[in-house]
Amino acid sequence: MHPKDAPLHPLAGTRSVAVSGRRAVRVYEAQDCVAEEVPVALEFNGISHAVMLASPVDLEDFAMGFALTEGIVQAASEVHDIDLLPSPQGMTVRLRIASARFAALKERRRTLAGRTGCGLCGTESLGDAVRAPAPLQTPVRFVASAVTAALQALRSRQALHEATGATHAAGWARASGELALVREDVGRHNALDKLVGALMRERLPAGDGFIVITSRASYEMVGKTARAGVALLAAVSGVTGLAVDVASQAQVALAGFARGQDLTLYTHPQRLLWNDRHGQ
Amino acid sequence: MHPKDAPLHPLAGTRSVAVSGRRAVRVYEAQDCVAEEVPVALEFNGISHAVMLASPVDLEDFAMGFALTEGIVQAASEVHDIDLLPSPQGMTVRLRIASARFAALKERRRTLAGRTGCGLCGTESLGDAVRAPAPLQTPVRFVASAVTAALQALRSRQALHEATGATHAAGWARASGELALVREDVGRHNALDKLVGALMRERLPAGDGFIVITSRASYEMVGKTARAGVALLAAVSGVTGLAVDVASQAQVALAGFARGQDLTLYTHPQRLLWNDRHGQ
Repeated sequence: MHPKDAPLHPLAGTRSVAVSGRRAVRVYEAQDCVAEEVPVALEFNGISHAVMLASPVDLEDFAMGFALTEGIVQAASEVHDIDLLPSPQGMTVRLRIASARFAALKERRRTLAGRTGCGLCGTESLGDAVRAPAPLQTPVRFVASAVTAALQALRSRQALHEATGATHAAGWARASGELALVREDVGRHNALDKLVGALMRERLPAGDGFIVITSRASYEMVGKTARAGVALLAAVSGVTGLAVDVASQAQVALAGFARGQDLTLYTHPQRLLWNDRHGQ
Repeated sequence: MHPKDAPLHPLAGTRSVAVSGRRAVRVYEAQDCVAEEVPVALEFNGISHAVMLASPVDLEDFAMGFALTEGIVQAASEVHDIDLLPSPQGMTVRLRIASARFAALKERRRTLAGRTGCGLCGTESLGDAVRAPAPLQTPVRFVASAVTAALQALRSRQALHEATGATHAAGWARASGELALVREDVGRHNALDKLVGALMRERLPAGDGFIVITSRASYEMVGKTARAGVALLAAVSGVTGLAVDVASQAQVALAGFARGQDLTLYTHPQRLLWNDRHGQ
């Protein structure tokens, strides 16, 4: 953020730093508020799985969401316990998951370890790179005015972004457009994982609502949305070609450039009613 | 981008898709141009290393930059050959690197494989997550007006973003502010890797200039900048706390919110002269 607006008491997930700068021609020295970016290690049943850089807030939601959107568990009930262990290097999140799921995860990891690849989360061959989510079977539809309302509400609910200007947000709205949940992170994928984890932990009916994000939509964001059972993803910024492909296959309606009343719909137009009364 | 502005002949790295939408209250159907996002597999001396999603342009630059900023090679001369192999699943980039470097890479991978982790690019423990780049020894300084000029030029040199609204850019400017190189990608880290690779392949004096990016600056962006030997990174958007820490340690001047004449400098103010004549 611009230093002038820096709050005196930094928010969780932020810190105050000394800066110099130029604003409106004037050179100054001041304190500024920046978003923390912390290494977070996820452990499943005592086995280290991955380390990611994330905003150190809502990490239980992050762990739960990651476990679901990565296909490690299928439901919140398969995660028995989540513990946070701070350390000087960062944060370790220990999940205890159902033994059948842990056995499946070990098998997946054993298969990967047998190959030569390092892998981005175990991915080393082109064929593995794009995992297609199962197509959603729901006939759910939404009205465009609800999407517009949720996006407007999202702008005013980004506390971390307000303080730092360096984070993304993901929100879940009910069909009415009421924004029920918002999560933020320095990483846009993490923000979405946190949102999905929060939906599961609060046992909200994810599939009855839709997701809005402040960022662009890559194919991974669409995959995470589909795995959460949500049939509409609206992004403030653009979408990629692969995001369109995955959304098309997964029966997810994908919208981009959703700003004010404007919106571009890339897939499944049957899921969006432009007009509340007549439908499309 | 907004469909109205979609060009008739899509640019490399983009494709045209059918959309519906609403703009300025009017509902329409049209063609729109989206950025391609393609799985790119990197192979070193015949061994698959990692798969990333990237814009399928300037992939030789990407491979070269990745090899440098990941510490796999130390100089362009250690990369003997780069070949692109398109396939239906994506693109494979085959690098042939100096045998001493390949031996070191194999050793690094062997060590990682001996552990249980899957790892995000081999990273599984908190201690490994944040690799500190070697501090830059250069006394180089830049004038603020050059940074401003380079950022202005960058806006008009983003062909992919102009066409799709879904990509980030990284540019390298000479000390005068002349923007000499620009690279774009759907991923901001990839855009920077492409830029660094292009600097190496074109044998430009990286350390004599500075880097400007259209995105936020995370710690990884600072690490890549330092490993390229560049002492100033200016981001259009915010910076994270860890980016400030890494920049401070690596002797990189890190600027954020660089828009118009405004700019916030988070580290090493001695590297930036606010005024061309008097210095700071």
